[in-house]
Amino acid sequence: MVSPTGPDGLTVGSMSSDPATWSAEYRAAVVDLIAFLAYGELTAFHRIAADAALAPRIADQGALAEMAVAEFRHFTLLRERLADLGVDPDVAMAPFRRPLDEFHAHTAPSDWLEGMVKAYVGDAIGVDFYREIANLVDPSTRELVLQVCEDFGHAEFVIDRVREEIAVDPKVAGRLALWGRRLVGEALSQAQRVAAERDALSTLLVGGVDLPGTDLAEVGRMLARLTENHTRRMNALGLAA
Amino acid sequence: MVSPTGPDGLTVGSMSSDPATWSAEYRAAVVDLIAFLAYGELTAFHRIAADAALAPRIADQGALAEMAVAEFRHFTLLRERLADLGVDPDVAMAPFRRPLDEFHAHTAPSDWLEGMVKAYVGDAIGVDFYREIANLVDPSTRELVLQVCEDFGHAEFVIDRVREEIAVDPKVAGRLALWGRRLVGEALSQAQRVAAERDALSTLLVGGVDLPGTDLAEVGRMLARLTENHTRRMNALGLAA
Repeated sequence: MVSPTGPDGLTVGSMSSDPATWSAEYRAAVVDLIAFLAYGELTAFHRIAADAALAPRIADQGALAEMAVAEFRHFTLLRERLADLGVDPDVAMAPFRRPLDEFHAHTAPSDWLEGMVKAYVGDAIGVDFYREIANLVDPSTRELVLQVCEDFGHAEFVIDRVREEIAVDPKVAGRLALWGRRLVGEALSQAQRVAAERDALSTLLVGGVDLPGTDLAEVGRMLARLTENHTRRMNALGLAA
Repeated sequence: MVSPTGPDGLTVGSMSSDPATWSAEYRAAVVDLIAFLAYGELTAFHRIAADAALAPRIADQGALAEMAVAEFRHFTLLRERLADLGVDPDVAMAPFRRPLDEFHAHTAPSDWLEGMVKAYVGDAIGVDFYREIANLVDPSTRELVLQVCEDFGHAEFVIDRVREEIAVDPKVAGRLALWGRRLVGEALSQAQRVAAERDALSTLLVGGVDLPGTDLAEVGRMLARLTENHTRRMNALGLAA
């Protein structure tokens, strides 16, 4: 699928798969996107792996560790693509270290249940976000993003475990509901920082002057979809979102 | 290779591969051994994954994360064997949680270099120990232990990185040499606790009354070999052991 590109080459969603034909701006946007996702996966790997150690049952530790390993697989796929695009993965990921490290620093779980809910919410918002992003990029980038998507969904076991704990101690529900809100609030605030600092990446989402792309209203609708899905999932956990 | 077993069935190293023929004592020893290795791998996974986040270079984070993922593969192999033997992996691993958790609590790295050295030393002593153990068990258990062994050796990159840091700041060498000694000291003290608390497992190493097995002198020689190899590796890192 090779579509004609706009005057400055950033007709998002209709770009050619061939990086040689990309405008500098679209190329910068794709590198930013993949680097952001890659470092996000790497930090998710570290955090889920570490938080898994908090679980009292070894079976839960193992299930969380499996999730972490999936995040690492995503990281390696994304890092390979950065190398294929001829950029140094370390350099490309550098701008995203602070926002992602701060997200995790501000959302360090105080116990294993918070760790489980964080892994579950993160996994689910991750797959939703990847699917949204897939609509905005060229076919080869889309294929990569969807390939990563297929390997999400390792967090379903969390639903049963959280509901079990709420059955034993109903007070847990209120605390975890607050925790879910804090996770989303912190994610939005770091996402805002990324959008503010990385022009290329935010142009990919909102389009630029004279660019079709996606407009601000569409970004609003995307956030609404992400939030609705989050609410639905928190309810599945037995929590008010 | 099916060998006749001793009067109480614990002729270590010459047992049949068929668990149905095992004495209760040998069976308990194998379950203990595999459970100990499995929980060791799971905690190594958690710790290396978490410590990897300390590395300033994303490339080093990635390399450490790859090591952690290898530990998780080992864990799943070992856990499967526990299930094949008809024991609940969680129950089998439970006795080893305290010594292994305490080992990690007492050896939390204060920076990424300590984390790297710990991963390297642990990986290397791990593979040495697995090879020693392989000589003491029946063929099918040996095959499993050697299969895990083949997947070690992901830590070689640490050598170059540590030597680079010592070149930049020679003071680092003294601190890391002390750190290496602390790691081994703590490992020995937790191993001693395990040996004291788990009769079946220590009988596998030292043999019992009237049992050929391995004798105490052989255990001493094994520890000497492990220590010599450790010293050689510390020297390879540019550190006095």
